[in-house]
Amino acid sequence: MALPVISQTQYAIGIDIGGTNTKFGIVDARGDILYRGAISTRKHEDVHDFIEELYEAVKPAVETVGGWNHIKGVGVGAPNGNYYKGTVEYAPNLTWTGIVPLASLIKTKFALPAWLTNDANAAAVGEMMYGAARGMRDFIMITLGTGVGSGIVANGQLIYGHDGFAGELGHTIIIPGGRHHPGTGAYGSLEAYASATGMKNTAIEMLAEHPDTPSELRKHSSDELESHHVYECAVKGDKIALQVFEYTGKILGMALANFVMFSSPEAIVLFGGPTKAGDMLLQPVREHMEANLLPIFRNKVKLIFSLLPESDAAILGASALVWENRD
Amino acid sequence: MALPVISQTQYAIGIDIGGTNTKFGIVDARGDILYRGAISTRKHEDVHDFIEELYEAVKPAVETVGGWNHIKGVGVGAPNGNYYKGTVEYAPNLTWTGIVPLASLIKTKFALPAWLTNDANAAAVGEMMYGAARGMRDFIMITLGTGVGSGIVANGQLIYGHDGFAGELGHTIIIPGGRHHPGTGAYGSLEAYASATGMKNTAIEMLAEHPDTPSELRKHSSDELESHHVYECAVKGDKIALQVFEYTGKILGMALANFVMFSSPEAIVLFGGPTKAGDMLLQPVREHMEANLLPIFRNKVKLIFSLLPESDAAILGASALVWENRD
Repeated sequence: MALPVISQTQYAIGIDIGGTNTKFGIVDARGDILYRGAISTRKHEDVHDFIEELYEAVKPAVETVGGWNHIKGVGVGAPNGNYYKGTVEYAPNLTWTGIVPLASLIKTKFALPAWLTNDANAAAVGEMMYGAARGMRDFIMITLGTGVGSGIVANGQLIYGHDGFAGELGHTIIIPGGRHHPGTGAYGSLEAYASATGMKNTAIEMLAEHPDTPSELRKHSSDELESHHVYECAVKGDKIALQVFEYTGKILGMALANFVMFSSPEAIVLFGGPTKAGDMLLQPVREHMEANLLPIFRNKVKLIFSLLPESDAAILGASALVWENRD
Repeated sequence: MALPVISQTQYAIGIDIGGTNTKFGIVDARGDILYRGAISTRKHEDVHDFIEELYEAVKPAVETVGGWNHIKGVGVGAPNGNYYKGTVEYAPNLTWTGIVPLASLIKTKFALPAWLTNDANAAAVGEMMYGAARGMRDFIMITLGTGVGSGIVANGQLIYGHDGFAGELGHTIIIPGGRHHPGTGAYGSLEAYASATGMKNTAIEMLAEHPDTPSELRKHSSDELESHHVYECAVKGDKIALQVFEYTGKILGMALANFVMFSSPEAIVLFGGPTKAGDMLLQPVREHMEANLLPIFRNKVKLIFSLLPESDAAILGASALVWENRD
């Protein structure tokens, strides 16, 4: 990616649309957020009302940086976002149904160019622009959270595919006939193991398989158990919790090996809650990734954690779409 | 990819280096081969001697098209070829050991720009330039033969990865702990099932599993059995042979689903001997690919066969590197 030519006083608006709230920020080309704000997503059943409130909330922020002529464009990260069409399509967590032409609504209302993609792709662009992947032309971003998202950069460009939906690595099948994913119906997809729910399910399975192994995880009912409990117990040396990280790392490592043999990235950037576990996660991931690689790929790929602060990553990623675009 | 600006009288030299012979051709921008030739690879233990003989063999061909000033460059397809470095690295089937700087040797001797990549990547570029993927910006080429090779095009460019070795999809693990690949040591890689040896091994396994099912394949000893026998028997309705295609198609289809969720290609182009089987292969591939895809990817990806004649594909692919390059 050629470095964009940006005057000193240009900013991007980054918008992160979530099911409950929409956050935004005014971001400079170095990734400093000069202004932050948020509005409710959920309360607007009509997307036009949402756009109106968003505009009114952003306006004072724009004035603080010198007015609209200092804004280069708007970047939006949204679930099920399609980069080519600028649409959000059938997003289960949003109140708007069907296909919503969000980028064009923003373009019209804000009178600015606007780009939109899904959360994980935005995160990858953010990492390339401001984070751990600065200067890299080939890397893969894996976001570990409620789901497992991904963004793939090759030849310095995000891979969107022919339809704008490329990079759904969380849904690739790692263990054929393996664990059922209730959301997609698939068996053995990466997300069924490496998402928060996946780690919780691994913990429940391991507690049942080793009834005689003492574990603090047993204090929580299955309903109540969450992936952060696994982390908290693992830090204290809880054997079952450590095994959950070992197993999660194994599946993730196997998956990463396949991804490496696809696009041979310089690095894989991991993002999200489980990365707090550091080497407890990274060590088995690395071990099983290397073990499954063809020799020519071994000991070459950097496995690194995101450098973007988790709370700002979505806004930063969205804003990076503005600097990254080549239109 | 922008269309290259080519004068009417420009040609490319395409060179296909195999373990036994090296073929070459003078190719125009539409993919017509004006002149074909070949020399022995094996007899030259010193790569410099090889380059000398190659030059002497190519020279008269160049004269037939009007001389060296009509040649835009030289493209080379070679096993274990690295595009960035122009090297052939530790190719087990070649007499030259270690890392051979083939592109720079050709550049010097021919006084022309030269590009080099592995066979499957060259095939993908050939397909994009002259074949079934003309005009496509996002597709995956899968070559089925002694091994399973691949070339991935995204955003109109071949994906080489950070080190020039991207696109080794034959070595991705589809069945963890599955069939052993004696060449790589991996268990359950695509190549262990979908290569010629893989299909042969599937046939041997199925014959053993169904000792009471009559099959013409039993006429051949295990040593003697080859993948083309499976095809010949399947055409005649042989039950075991048909099951071999069904099973090979299943594994290949599962693998393709993972590839689609990576780069969301417009098409997957299949090349090589097994494609002769047509729907016997394509039908199970399609069925199992679709079954393993996330709904947003379903019924979108074209599964097509290569349009390049098998005997010319390697030369055409190599020559296409010349038109495709953006240096």
